[in-house]
Amino acid sequence: MALKIACGQMEIIAGRPDLNTKKMLQLIGLAKNDNVDILLFPELAVPGSMIGDLWEQTDFLKDCETYGQEIIEAAQDIIVIFGNVATDWKRKNKDGLVRKYNAAFTAQNGKLISAAPGFDFVAKTVLPACHQCDAPRYFSGQERLLKDKRASLKNGWGSVTVTVQGKEYKLGLLLGEDGLTDNGTANVPAMLKKSGAEMICNLSSSPFILGKNSQRHLRFSKQAKELQLPVVYCNHTGIQNTGKNIYTFDGQSCVYGPDGMVKAAAPMFEEKLLTFSWDKEHDKIRAYAAQDELITTEDDDAEILYKTIRYGTSRFLKQTGIKRMVLGASGGIDSAVTAALFTDILGPHQVLLVNMPSRYNSELTKNLAQNLAENLGCCYTITPINESVSHTVEQLYTPIHNYTTNRDFKVELTGLMYENIQARDRGSRILAGFSAAFKGGISCNANKAEITVGYGTFYGDLIGLFCPLGDLWKHQVYALGKYLNESVFKRNVIPEQIFTIRPSAELSQEQTVGNGGDPLVYEYHDYLLRAFVEKWDTSSPAEILKHYIHHDLEAFLGCRAGILSQIFYTHAAFCKDLERWYGLFTGLAVAKRIQAPPILSLSKRAFGTDYREAQLTTYYSLEYKSLKEKLLVQERLF
Amino acid sequence: MALKIACGQMEIIAGRPDLNTKKMLQLIGLAKNDNVDILLFPELAVPGSMIGDLWEQTDFLKDCETYGQEIIEAAQDIIVIFGNVATDWKRKNKDGLVRKYNAAFTAQNGKLISAAPGFDFVAKTVLPACHQCDAPRYFSGQERLLKDKRASLKNGWGSVTVTVQGKEYKLGLLLGEDGLTDNGTANVPAMLKKSGAEMICNLSSSPFILGKNSQRHLRFSKQAKELQLPVVYCNHTGIQNTGKNIYTFDGQSCVYGPDGMVKAAAPMFEEKLLTFSWDKEHDKIRAYAAQDELITTEDDDAEILYKTIRYGTSRFLKQTGIKRMVLGASGGIDSAVTAALFTDILGPHQVLLVNMPSRYNSELTKNLAQNLAENLGCCYTITPINESVSHTVEQLYTPIHNYTTNRDFKVELTGLMYENIQARDRGSRILAGFSAAFKGGISCNANKAEITVGYGTFYGDLIGLFCPLGDLWKHQVYALGKYLNESVFKRNVIPEQIFTIRPSAELSQEQTVGNGGDPLVYEYHDYLLRAFVEKWDTSSPAEILKHYIHHDLEAFLGCRAGILSQIFYTHAAFCKDLERWYGLFTGLAVAKRIQAPPILSLSKRAFGTDYREAQLTTYYSLEYKSLKEKLLVQERLF
Repeated sequence: MALKIACGQMEIIAGRPDLNTKKMLQLIGLAKNDNVDILLFPELAVPGSMIGDLWEQTDFLKDCETYGQEIIEAAQDIIVIFGNVATDWKRKNKDGLVRKYNAAFTAQNGKLISAAPGFDFVAKTVLPACHQCDAPRYFSGQERLLKDKRASLKNGWGSVTVTVQGKEYKLGLLLGEDGLTDNGTANVPAMLKKSGAEMICNLSSSPFILGKNSQRHLRFSKQAKELQLPVVYCNHTGIQNTGKNIYTFDGQSCVYGPDGMVKAAAPMFEEKLLTFSWDKEHDKIRAYAAQDELITTEDDDAEILYKTIRYGTSRFLKQTGIKRMVLGASGGIDSAVTAALFTDILGPHQVLLVNMPSRYNSELTKNLAQNLAENLGCCYTITPINESVSHTVEQLYTPIHNYTTNRDFKVELTGLMYENIQARDRGSRILAGFSAAFKGGISCNANKAEITVGYGTFYGDLIGLFCPLGDLWKHQVYALGKYLNESVFKRNVIPEQIFTIRPSAELSQEQTVGNGGDPLVYEYHDYLLRAFVEKWDTSSPAEILKHYIHHDLEAFLGCRAGILSQIFYTHAAFCKDLERWYGLFTGLAVAKRIQAPPILSLSKRAFGTDYREAQLTTYYSLEYKSLKEKLLVQERLF
Repeated sequence: MALKIACGQMEIIAGRPDLNTKKMLQLIGLAKNDNVDILLFPELAVPGSMIGDLWEQTDFLKDCETYGQEIIEAAQDIIVIFGNVATDWKRKNKDGLVRKYNAAFTAQNGKLISAAPGFDFVAKTVLPACHQCDAPRYFSGQERLLKDKRASLKNGWGSVTVTVQGKEYKLGLLLGEDGLTDNGTANVPAMLKKSGAEMICNLSSSPFILGKNSQRHLRFSKQAKELQLPVVYCNHTGIQNTGKNIYTFDGQSCVYGPDGMVKAAAPMFEEKLLTFSWDKEHDKIRAYAAQDELITTEDDDAEILYKTIRYGTSRFLKQTGIKRMVLGASGGIDSAVTAALFTDILGPHQVLLVNMPSRYNSELTKNLAQNLAENLGCCYTITPINESVSHTVEQLYTPIHNYTTNRDFKVELTGLMYENIQARDRGSRILAGFSAAFKGGISCNANKAEITVGYGTFYGDLIGLFCPLGDLWKHQVYALGKYLNESVFKRNVIPEQIFTIRPSAELSQEQTVGNGGDPLVYEYHDYLLRAFVEKWDTSSPAEILKHYIHHDLEAFLGCRAGILSQIFYTHAAFCKDLERWYGLFTGLAVAKRIQAPPILSLSKRAFGTDYREAQLTTYYSLEYKSLKEKLLVQERLF
């Protein structure tokens, strides 16, 4: 006899046990109609996972318990396995607050099935404290639980025996990171196998990250093969956030046979009851529905980028109740891509593009902004800032009285100040005004390279509801733009010239489209800055310089061979450039990021909760200083 | 024979092992001149503690090791015990990065003294994951170390035996939270006693928090008495930050005798070599210097508030290189207090007060702002915003073209939009302009009540370099103002009327000083909001409502008896008010806090890294809904 099993790949709403439970009860009903024997739900399906310090509120925890009980009671004629917070009201965590576990509950006939004698649930063992995760802040782990109850791992912990039509099945339950066995943490899957598990069920709450899915497939396929057990990965959809980071959850629940092959898979970003049959005797797993393309192995691929940004953006707008968006349209690539993206999501009537020319803006970019609006069919207006900027400058030049000396004096304005006045006039005066009046959110169009070095003005172009492109390097923004033209709109809604003009902020005589553009040479700096931020053990100036000296920096960074010699004619120039950007990255840019809008997170390291930083003074290591000194002495000698 | 021991209460600069080591070498020299036998330094004295993910950079860790070696080599004719990061280059943490410990090293004769056979250092056992702490993100704990080395706690772990003039002394070393034994974590001090320690040396990196010092004194006094051992607490001064929170470190290193009495203490916020003698045979501890007032047991006391804010503010300005400040001066209490504070720190020439009247500002507040500037002797200017606001409104009313319908349309502006235009005009146009031109930082004058409910305008009054009053409730702001007048300036630099007028934003006809003022009734809301944020298990609406129903809410919140009946005439009005503020607190205010400037942290719970939050939809618990329903039905019946 084969069992019918289902993964309830549902959309979870963080902090809403009421809504999540409602959805789960619906799915239980659907599964029962479909004769499902065992229904799995994701990790922390009832409360959601990213809820910050709301974990501290007793009332919230009580409600999670109450709603969990509703699900247990609904488990009639079906076995339901679900993630929820388990509260031990009699014990305390290290912080003095009530003891909490990230737990998997198993229910049948309206009651819980014991995970082991005396245990109502299986607790998560591996509590991640890296990336955006603060699990040890809230949860105690399985080891703590076992210690309290003086139980031993040898007692078959984590495997739950369920009985279907008189036959026993031993399911090995684990949660999220328990399935990873890379870094010398407890090997939970192997422990489960040892305790007699016949199938590994991984309840997960795992955000989408570029490149992670292909890694996951490799890992779980290997795990299934090594353990000779089927592995079921049940993830959810929706978005959750940590304040500074908005994460998408792609779902992509997946079933691996003991041969390591994918047997069934649910699509990306769609709710789905993924059903499959498990014939234990004949060691067979089979999907019910036809499985055309079983898995997505995404890479740095424009289609995946587009799909994820579109999903994350539309869900975030829905959650915040925003139906319209307001964007500054400069004629540059970043604003053009976001304009196309929001038009695609909300429809052209709901998107207002505002072109805000000063005397430095070229006819070229003004026309490009207008063409973009025409092509997209958006709402469009031109709001010049000359008059206001002149008035501001005039007001700033008004004498100031010093009440100690009883004399008046005047301030002086430099070119940079004048540039920032323009940027703030556009952002905080015009766009913020239209945002309220048009009832639309402001899109912050900064990309990751700009955010890394703080190339943007406080309260100017760094304002907004959120940053849809804030985790994309400039080259990824171009790729996304091309994809929008070619595959989404299937015509050049983003005018071709926007791809070819040199990026420029157009804030001064020196900084125009015709004249010098952005100080960042994206072909190199995109990759240099990526090494600072995204390399897991973060690249330091010394590491960069070592590779430069060994002539393998381009390969190390992954940028085009030959680019360095095109940019830098001397070692001194290379070092000066390196220090310029490293100094900004660890200096003023930190202050700007602290006040920047939330970022839609896509990469393996996004600024915000995933990359924690203090305002420090820039530090260069002893090795960097010595390498640099040698290099420059050498240069002077020759 | 008595030993001479010293605590090196030094100012630590986070992320600067070079500068911290330099300071430590100076103090070693001073201590040697003073015939000190044993010199203690604080926890993580070499790297600092709040450095975010800089812990991941290999080069930084290597330098900490190199500088640590310099200190070890300088330990000649003196024993030096100091906090540093210990890196085990051969092992990995759970995150795959190199294994790190928060460690105490002991050096004599230019070499390390073993903490136990095979161990070069003592590692911190209790790794806090609450408040602003993310210790498990970076560090492995002592238990991990012992497991790796297959050592047992019974081997006398944590006690280091030093020899001075042929005599052995067993020092029990622990780090920061290892000294706390409240919540069922390992009792490290008792373990040390068991392993033969004759003195407890607590190397600490402990930020100032209102009310914490009196608790600490009670705790360590009790600990010393119970263990019958002297307890030495060595803390540092300076500031460190976590991005969103700036913390002051008060020092206040302290020595407790086995009788629980304070024997020697270093002052608040001052660098100091605190020396004392320890006569082991006669069980005597004696300070060398006269100790007038040994300890500060601060409470919610204006003097302590002032001292801490002044110290934190001046250090933060120094670190960021800011020598001047720009403030909007509205004539209200918040801006008046910050103006006085910055004048006190920087001198009047360095402070620019800008009064930015619109047509809603009263002559009264305009005069008060000017009087304030006169009294302080500051720089002062009046920059009206009428013209600019009219121009903005006019520009926003310019027709917008819809490229789909090919028709023009206009937006509509409401009163609230008009208010926010004014606030942004003041903040992002005028103040930000003056900030650059006057080369001064902008002070964000929001108080904690405003920040809690988001009573402030994005890119308007919520901009700035940092929020000096952002962790003070409104009543604390008044208290600080009074203290500045009475005890700092010793005259009414803040005009008396500023204390007595009703707070108002003066942004509309309805919201003026004469007419209705702020919607917050601080006498009640200060305390209600405090319960939401600062109560350790955070008060929920249900908890508040329960106390309201039981007629003990005023006592529970700590606000004036009788205030509730003055504000609310019906239960329905009470609930409506509660939901209004709880909805804002958990709603729009979260979005505002994400983009708000860093807060100088003083309370036991400051917004930012200490209070983590996601953007969620507001959730009311089942209990709240049921209590409210019963209450309102009751009300309708009577």
